[in-house]
Amino acid sequence: MKTYLTGIKATGSQHLGNMVGAIRPAIEFSQNESGRFLYFIADYHSLTTVKKAKDFSEYVYEVAATWLALGLDPEKAILYKQSDIPEIFELTWILACNTPKGDLNRAHAYKAIVQDNEEAGRDPDKSVNAGLFNYPVLMAADILLFDTNIVPVGKDQVQHVEMARSMAQRINQLYGDTLVEPQEALSVSGQYIPGLDGQKMSKSYDNTIPLWVPEKRLKKLINKIATDSTGPDEPKSTEGSAIFDIYKCFSTKEEQDAFAKQFAEGISWGEAKAALFEKVNAELAGPREEYERLMNNRSEIDAVLETGAKKARAIAQETMKRVRKNLTNF
Amino acid sequence: MKTYLTGIKATGSQHLGNMVGAIRPAIEFSQNESGRFLYFIADYHSLTTVKKAKDFSEYVYEVAATWLALGLDPEKAILYKQSDIPEIFELTWILACNTPKGDLNRAHAYKAIVQDNEEAGRDPDKSVNAGLFNYPVLMAADILLFDTNIVPVGKDQVQHVEMARSMAQRINQLYGDTLVEPQEALSVSGQYIPGLDGQKMSKSYDNTIPLWVPEKRLKKLINKIATDSTGPDEPKSTEGSAIFDIYKCFSTKEEQDAFAKQFAEGISWGEAKAALFEKVNAELAGPREEYERLMNNRSEIDAVLETGAKKARAIAQETMKRVRKNLTNF
Repeated sequence: MKTYLTGIKATGSQHLGNMVGAIRPAIEFSQNESGRFLYFIADYHSLTTVKKAKDFSEYVYEVAATWLALGLDPEKAILYKQSDIPEIFELTWILACNTPKGDLNRAHAYKAIVQDNEEAGRDPDKSVNAGLFNYPVLMAADILLFDTNIVPVGKDQVQHVEMARSMAQRINQLYGDTLVEPQEALSVSGQYIPGLDGQKMSKSYDNTIPLWVPEKRLKKLINKIATDSTGPDEPKSTEGSAIFDIYKCFSTKEEQDAFAKQFAEGISWGEAKAALFEKVNAELAGPREEYERLMNNRSEIDAVLETGAKKARAIAQETMKRVRKNLTNF
Repeated sequence: MKTYLTGIKATGSQHLGNMVGAIRPAIEFSQNESGRFLYFIADYHSLTTVKKAKDFSEYVYEVAATWLALGLDPEKAILYKQSDIPEIFELTWILACNTPKGDLNRAHAYKAIVQDNEEAGRDPDKSVNAGLFNYPVLMAADILLFDTNIVPVGKDQVQHVEMARSMAQRINQLYGDTLVEPQEALSVSGQYIPGLDGQKMSKSYDNTIPLWVPEKRLKKLINKIATDSTGPDEPKSTEGSAIFDIYKCFSTKEEQDAFAKQFAEGISWGEAKAALFEKVNAELAGPREEYERLMNNRSEIDAVLETGAKKARAIAQETMKRVRKNLTNF
């Protein structure tokens, strides 16, 4: 049985882009594949940037409630938060002792910051904290602690899995077989979804439709989606239409064909937006209610995360027994 | 009540220099001062260099048995090994997220290696692993986790306490009072002891008298101590005499005066060495037996370290509760 591990960032409110690009495909993956699935909220990663305690815990609850509301089944996938697994940090230290600092110097994320700083004539390490610099070691511990075989990742994350694998290889070479050497798998690609302005939906473009806004607000936001100036009754192109592209993420092939036909027949932008709202809202209404329910019953989220932590720690402790035995003879 | 914390390196066999320079004064300190004393074996620190599991555990047992045999009372001082306290590594990560990488760039030990590498025309980070680079953060966690007030240190270790203090200050500023800000205290200075060749006794000079060699071997080693060519019956100078200087570390003022008188009266080097052997052996014979006994009853050492770990973790968990509450709202 293969073990799959996915990290979930614990930062601000989730939007439609996160849902269709990452969360939905990850949940479907855990439902359709057989294997052991670990989904963890990387809350201690976010300590490198999140500096308010209230935000820290709020993000954790929001993320957990989002995944649960969208259908993650904690019986099929182990959902836990990183900060509940102390073994991760012990392994982080052990891996650090077996990782050339040069490997961290060459990590993409760190190098990008150094380059920005140098181009701006600043100290190369300006605003870099040690957590950020050591991020790849923590990420390797996240992966290696659970004998992970496969890490579904986006392209920009491949290096992290490569680094984790090379740490495992180094340990195995030096101390004999100790850690499973993980492989990356480019994630089941989620759908592309444009934001309000037609660019890719992303917090950095400030063009997102947050997942859990009330129905009325969702309608208002959808009404704000940029359209071209084609008049009512004129035939409209689905090509490059943000409305059509978002619609595609929430409909069957047949529904899309029918919607395309309406475009060709000159549906007004107002009608198209109304149709889009109905579609999106139909998919979100149930989860939204569940999300609200969970956020008002946080002890229920706590219980899920506690159960997850227990299951995850059982695996972690087995790995650490092996690591300690092989590396320290204790 | 003040908390004092001392780290004990877990590397190779201990020698007379360690005993009179560090161990004896530290043990006396814990007997004579009032306060809470924590002595920990920094075994996970040694992972940056010790790469054989057998050596790792052997060093831990040797160090623990040495301190116990020389009189550390585990009822008066908490003796534990670092690797038994997982909270240390969790706090290490938390501190890393609040430590500018630049502070680590400027750590003395790291800078010295970089300078050596640069002078030799090598990559500045050649042979530097991430553990070594992050060493000051782990050391800060060692200190801060136990609400340490005072860290007795040698001059070369002052920077580490300064860094720990500045990490505590940064956390306290950002999140409100969370960590005790520790102070360094130059260690109760142990005695200077020369090695076989008259230079300071040190593993790097290969001139040590190991603590736990059998009596016969101890006698042989003492007979090897360098002397000047003053003949038998000639008056001898105590000044610069390694024999006299070592004798001083194991005798009362009266005994030293008497020994000095014998020097002036022309004791032969052979007689002086015999007298020195008697003195050193008298002090070591009991502890040597106890050391051997402990090394042959390792479960007894395990039990001491387990009890120590329990006591230490009780303190650690209180601190971590506070840290988690203030930083993560959990």
